[in-house]
Amino acid sequence: MSANRTTRRLFRVGEMPTSRIEAFSDGVFAIVVTLLILSIQVPQFQGREPGSFLTAALRGMIPKFLSYALSFGIACVWWVAHHHLFALLTKSDRGLLWLNSLFLFWLASVPFPTALLGDYPRERIAVVCYGAVMLMAGLSFSSMRYYAFYIGKLTAPGLDRKMLRRAMIKSALNPLLHLIAMLLVLVNTTLPLVLYAAIPILYFLPTRLEHYTASTKPD
Amino acid sequence: MSANRTTRRLFRVGEMPTSRIEAFSDGVFAIVVTLLILSIQVPQFQGREPGSFLTAALRGMIPKFLSYALSFGIACVWWVAHHHLFALLTKSDRGLLWLNSLFLFWLASVPFPTALLGDYPRERIAVVCYGAVMLMAGLSFSSMRYYAFYIGKLTAPGLDRKMLRRAMIKSALNPLLHLIAMLLVLVNTTLPLVLYAAIPILYFLPTRLEHYTASTKPD
Amino acid sequence: MSANRTTRRLFRVGEMPTSRIEAFSDGVFAIVVTLLILSIQVPQFQGREPGSFLTAALRGMIPKFLSYALSFGIACVWWVAHHHLFALLTKSDRGLLWLNSLFLFWLASVPFPTALLGDYPRERIAVVCYGAVMLMAGLSFSSMRYYAFYIGKLTAPGLDRKMLRRAMIKSALNPLLHLIAMLLVLVNTTLPLVLYAAIPILYFLPTRLEHYTASTKPD
Amino acid sequence: MSANRTTRRLFRVGEMPTSRIEAFSDGVFAIVVTLLILSIQVPQFQGREPGSFLTAALRGMIPKFLSYALSFGIACVWWVAHHHLFALLTKSDRGLLWLNSLFLFWLASVPFPTALLGDYPRERIAVVCYGAVMLMAGLSFSSMRYYAFYIGKLTAPGLDRKMLRRAMIKSALNPLLHLIAMLLVLVNTTLPLVLYAAIPILYFLPTRLEHYTASTKPD
Repeated sequence: MSANRTTRRLFRVGEMPTSRIEAFSDGVFAIVVTLLILSIQVPQFQGREPGSFLTAALRGMIPKFLSYALSFGIACVWWVAHHHLFALLTKSDRGLLWLNSLFLFWLASVPFPTALLGDYPRERIAVVCYGAVMLMAGLSFSSMRYYAFYIGKLTAPGLDRKMLRRAMIKSALNPLLHLIAMLLVLVNTTLPLVLYAAIPILYFLPTRLEHYTASTKPD
Repeated sequence: MSANRTTRRLFRVGEMPTSRIEAFSDGVFAIVVTLLILSIQVPQFQGREPGSFLTAALRGMIPKFLSYALSFGIACVWWVAHHHLFALLTKSDRGLLWLNSLFLFWLASVPFPTALLGDYPRERIAVVCYGAVMLMAGLSFSSMRYYAFYIGKLTAPGLDRKMLRRAMIKSALNPLLHLIAMLLVLVNTTLPLVLYAAIPILYFLPTRLEHYTASTKPD
Repeated sequence: MSANRTTRRLFRVGEMPTSRIEAFSDGVFAIVVTLLILSIQVPQFQGREPGSFLTAALRGMIPKFLSYALSFGIACVWWVAHHHLFALLTKSDRGLLWLNSLFLFWLASVPFPTALLGDYPRERIAVVCYGAVMLMAGLSFSSMRYYAFYIGKLTAPGLDRKMLRRAMIKSALNPLLHLIAMLLVLVNTTLPLVLYAAIPILYFLPTRLEHYTASTKPD
Repeated sequence: MSANRTTRRLFRVGEMPTSRIEAFSDGVFAIVVTLLILSIQVPQFQGREPGSFLTAALRGMIPKFLSYALSFGIACVWWVAHHHLFALLTKSDRGLLWLNSLFLFWLASVPFPTALLGDYPRERIAVVCYGAVMLMAGLSFSSMRYYAFYIGKLTAPGLDRKMLRRAMIKSALNPLLHLIAMLLVLVNTTLPLVLYAAIPILYFLPTRLEHYTASTKPD
């Protein structure tokens, strides 16, 4: 019986325990945030006394540091969101597995637009690329959430549907905001960057509010 | 007694718990898929206004992005297959340990042929190298499965032998398909690439069918 | 009831189990110490017989090796400190989560100042940058400890307050020492480096003393 | 009482559970074997038709592939040895922690001599550097084993002392063999490389013999 069930499991891809998917995703998160720094290379000089050149070169690299910090912050917000989604799930299936892989694909891609934006912070194409990868990551994350909540029905039974919907809307808002930020590139290249930086902060604050609301409500 | 058994364990290499081998392999998987992006470097210009050059350069990098996406997808399919194999095993031994290391060796090598194909997508040697590494990975994975099923007898007792054989055939088909794809390089360099991309999709679909068959069968 | 609590958890970011934050941090630690070596590149020559040039080039790279070893050692000391802090905590909250992310941000940044110092060990700006990143990491670590001990009150109840204060002081001393080391750059560039190297050793020794004190005391 | 013990733990560094040290070490192992491939860069050409140049360039890179494969194999042998050592330990202490960190330092350094040897397989200095890092890793591993067995007394009580000694001798033999291999550089650069490759195989075979001896002995 039990052996039979094990054999069958071989063909039911999605029934991998959620903890395994989470551990693998955590690994990718940890590696991505740590690899980001590799795009910032130490400036090299041919001359003997790099002194003042070095300081100037480092000052010129400020956009790289900012781009690095922004991507680090966004990845941390996603990491928390990812854990919170998986904390609600009691099982997994094939759909979840592949949507999660798709999300990890876009997450793993982040070092490239980060380096691109760091090198060309005033180029429209760089600003658009950065937003596009974040948009795709946000879209695949929202799809994964939607699939888990409403299609695969992988959540614990009896969860408050209103809360699920609120979480869903908040998730869907993220790629929408990135789309708006990207369109602002038609005005100039500063506005999208300001919005890119504001989005993770927005995701930090409202949750805080809800947290207080939730904790003051009676059980 | 128990202490004696522990001493002996020192010399029985393969009796490491399978969970440990799996965790180590998961680490390698997570790092490989995340390192792939490092082969895509931001284009550098000497001129002042990179604007249109940058867009053109990024467009010229499309083969790199495709090569990256393909390797990411293949690695994800392998990751799932690896977990499913290990879910069937109740113990490990030295043979499994070294065959798994061999598989990880080829898996860890993937970033090189990925970068090579991204740089020279029309060169036969790059197309062949890519296929060869995938072929070697597939061969070592199939060997590991064969060893675990039939030589080391590491599976749970009472598993349906027909299912094991079907899984074995499916595994062995993978390097065979890569061999065929590689030979198609004699015709042109596009056909192998199309087949390389089709193989992971093939591995996605039939399993799906079997899944439905399995879940409609009575227990 | 229980389902309701799960829904609420979605909005209580900080209530992620501490083990999860620790595992993620461990991943970042492991990756950072291993990435450090990537900043040391093999010297390349155009000539045919690199023989004596190679030996000279490797000898010239000694500052890079020292800078690598120093950062490796500092990261190991932090890793131990991080575990010891988390061993005292029984729960986590949002504040801890973000302060930990901030610490990981500075930790993940370490490969850059390490490479910078390795390339320009006699440049003030490189010496200052190295100290500044270590200072920021130390500050964020101390803040996290302060928050956990006194603001979030995340420690196990009944912990000896004197011991907590001693640990707090020791933690706060670290960024202070780095600040002093950085200021010594006004004298020369050797003094700060000596102090940078001495700090992790200082952190190794006093703990040792306390350890012996603790273990000879009656229970 | 229990809270008091927790406070004290803050000052007893080595009493971190061995599983934690092992997990961290596993992370470093997984990252090192996966980073090795990054030292093999795709050859770049200025010309339009890289065809035959590319094949020739790849053939010229064979030493790099061999150096990569050798380091991968050595790291796998160490990984197995590391687990087997830790399987015998029931506790850890500060000495073990720092000796393990020292071992991880040399392990994490492996990508550099690997790349050096891949680039200059006929240069004495490269051959010596490779052996020296392996020697230092072997020495620190042996020291850790010696410390755990005889100084820290961290093993399970009642372990067969003869078996421990045999394991100790086998461990100590490893850096000795590397030292001999390094000295052979005075003859030529091929002999050391042959011995470097033979050592991991030697470590594979005798253990096998002992395994059979052990398993045919009565309990």
